[in-house]
Amino acid sequence: MPEMDAIQAAKVLIEADLRGIDSHGVARLSGYIRLKEAGRANMNAAAKIIHETPSTATLDADQGLGLVVAPKAMDIAIEKAKQVGTGWVAIQNSNHFGIAAYHAMMALPHNMIGISMTNASPLVAPTHSKERMLGTNPICVAIPAGKHLPFVLDMATSAAANGKLEIAQRMGKSLPNDWVQTKDGGASNDANELKNGGSLLPLGGHKGYGLAAMVDILSGVLSGANFGPWVPPFVAFLNPLPNLPGKGIGHFLGAMRVDAFRSADEFTEQMDVWISRFKEASRVQAEQEVFIPGELEFRLKEERLNSGIPLHPSVWDDLQQVAVKFGLNL
Amino acid sequence: MPEMDAIQAAKVLIEADLRGIDSHGVARLSGYIRLKEAGRANMNAAAKIIHETPSTATLDADQGLGLVVAPKAMDIAIEKAKQVGTGWVAIQNSNHFGIAAYHAMMALPHNMIGISMTNASPLVAPTHSKERMLGTNPICVAIPAGKHLPFVLDMATSAAANGKLEIAQRMGKSLPNDWVQTKDGGASNDANELKNGGSLLPLGGHKGYGLAAMVDILSGVLSGANFGPWVPPFVAFLNPLPNLPGKGIGHFLGAMRVDAFRSADEFTEQMDVWISRFKEASRVQAEQEVFIPGELEFRLKEERLNSGIPLHPSVWDDLQQVAVKFGLNL
Repeated sequence: MPEMDAIQAAKVLIEADLRGIDSHGVARLSGYIRLKEAGRANMNAAAKIIHETPSTATLDADQGLGLVVAPKAMDIAIEKAKQVGTGWVAIQNSNHFGIAAYHAMMALPHNMIGISMTNASPLVAPTHSKERMLGTNPICVAIPAGKHLPFVLDMATSAAANGKLEIAQRMGKSLPNDWVQTKDGGASNDANELKNGGSLLPLGGHKGYGLAAMVDILSGVLSGANFGPWVPPFVAFLNPLPNLPGKGIGHFLGAMRVDAFRSADEFTEQMDVWISRFKEASRVQAEQEVFIPGELEFRLKEERLNSGIPLHPSVWDDLQQVAVKFGLNL
Repeated sequence: MPEMDAIQAAKVLIEADLRGIDSHGVARLSGYIRLKEAGRANMNAAAKIIHETPSTATLDADQGLGLVVAPKAMDIAIEKAKQVGTGWVAIQNSNHFGIAAYHAMMALPHNMIGISMTNASPLVAPTHSKERMLGTNPICVAIPAGKHLPFVLDMATSAAANGKLEIAQRMGKSLPNDWVQTKDGGASNDANELKNGGSLLPLGGHKGYGLAAMVDILSGVLSGANFGPWVPPFVAFLNPLPNLPGKGIGHFLGAMRVDAFRSADEFTEQMDVWISRFKEASRVQAEQEVFIPGELEFRLKEERLNSGIPLHPSVWDDLQQVAVKFGLNL
């Protein structure tokens, strides 16, 4: 793939590892390569705008990696926000875009609020259903502050993302209630339930189902991508369903200039008041502090920038195999 | 108040009752009157735009009712969306705006996606805190379909809204886990826990806290309204805190033209596919259907338009007292 695009994709993966979202970091590199080998990802993709207004655009990602096209789309959203206050970009014909936070946080240096979401491989059952109809469909909202670190909410709309199940599997632990259900829709605490045909449960019941559905519609239906059970799986060993209603997977991104609503200085000052006040909220246990969304990830990034990123032995093996395949020294 | 504004406020309250959100309907009428009597709501408010770009505006609601100013703000958002694709309005210096769905659904006849959210009286504790720092801060997203009814997600970001606790109180029932905590942050199933100084819990733990915080920041900090624990209480017998950082309560509304992203016909056709497919999702129990967000409320509205709105005896008494006070025959 073009060197600039490769660098961009690597940046998104490494940012995930730095922030402690190990499931979305370099551990996925071989997965993207398998998508290419299966003919499902185009490494020479040329994304293009297929629909546009002053505050919106729709992008055809040309089957490229979301890792590459989402930052380009975010640049467009930011440019539109500079012109008319806000910018919103829907993306079709894409693939997995990594962590949502990378894209939303691109707005922060511009004193803009960044928004990103994506649909994903169906694993989550709607309320009262036992069928996998929705992805873990994350939502990220990044909001600049002044002297404090930014507010960065980055959350799956399922009760738990797949990565947390994998950790429980490795440790042989049972899951909390309401994370998964059996293939018949029964209660389960088994971390291996997905392998038995079970499904993930939405965050907090029907509200999480509604949020995941909203993300699916904005990312998939509005952009012209696939949606619901038709979203092509990330894993290359599963084929997309026949008769797809759209193209690839979809994302939805936005940028809002803070000073399109009030002076940026006033806003960042008040955000500092907001953050300080929430840090001071009275604690249930004196030693357990209250966190601002994103705070733990910023701390982990600082730590990992100093001491390095610990990789699981299986991830390291996987990277070595990639290196051998491409004739690189690791 | 001006007759047009009174009619608008009544429409929002009655729509709540029609949709089955009885806690936000005419049951609240006397509460709004008490706010006026306490000098906290201005019935002759003249909302005005205090900041503007082609796709955004900030409104000062002049201490009026959210019931009146939010529809006016939504008209502005819709007008901006007609011009530049999307429109976004932040509102400061307002009061309770009723059900979020009324405002977001105003976008639907224009083939636009409507978004509405508001902050509210602090009742919800952040994760690891025992302090009431956030409101039930609802989010509504209304999305048009073709032959099907629209998708209308309207949800509090707390595990349960206050109205559900009141129902449990009346019926003498205990609450599910994770709805409330004691004043010390301990587990509780007591529907009266708020009276004991307890707090509501966010939807599904820290993610619900993050969503409620996002709503608070977009509605409160971005608009110049109050936020967090400073949001003035709806009940007139509680005074706002001293040294408020902003004005009144805040809302955040948006409208996105569907055809700012793809042809409206294509979109509504695909929304029909989305809805049909989700209605057909395989069921856990054959007799329990899968619902589309908003579907139950549309059904209830149809039923209540035919058979009338049942009012709790205490609500009827309350309305009669209002009628006597204003010399009306009820």
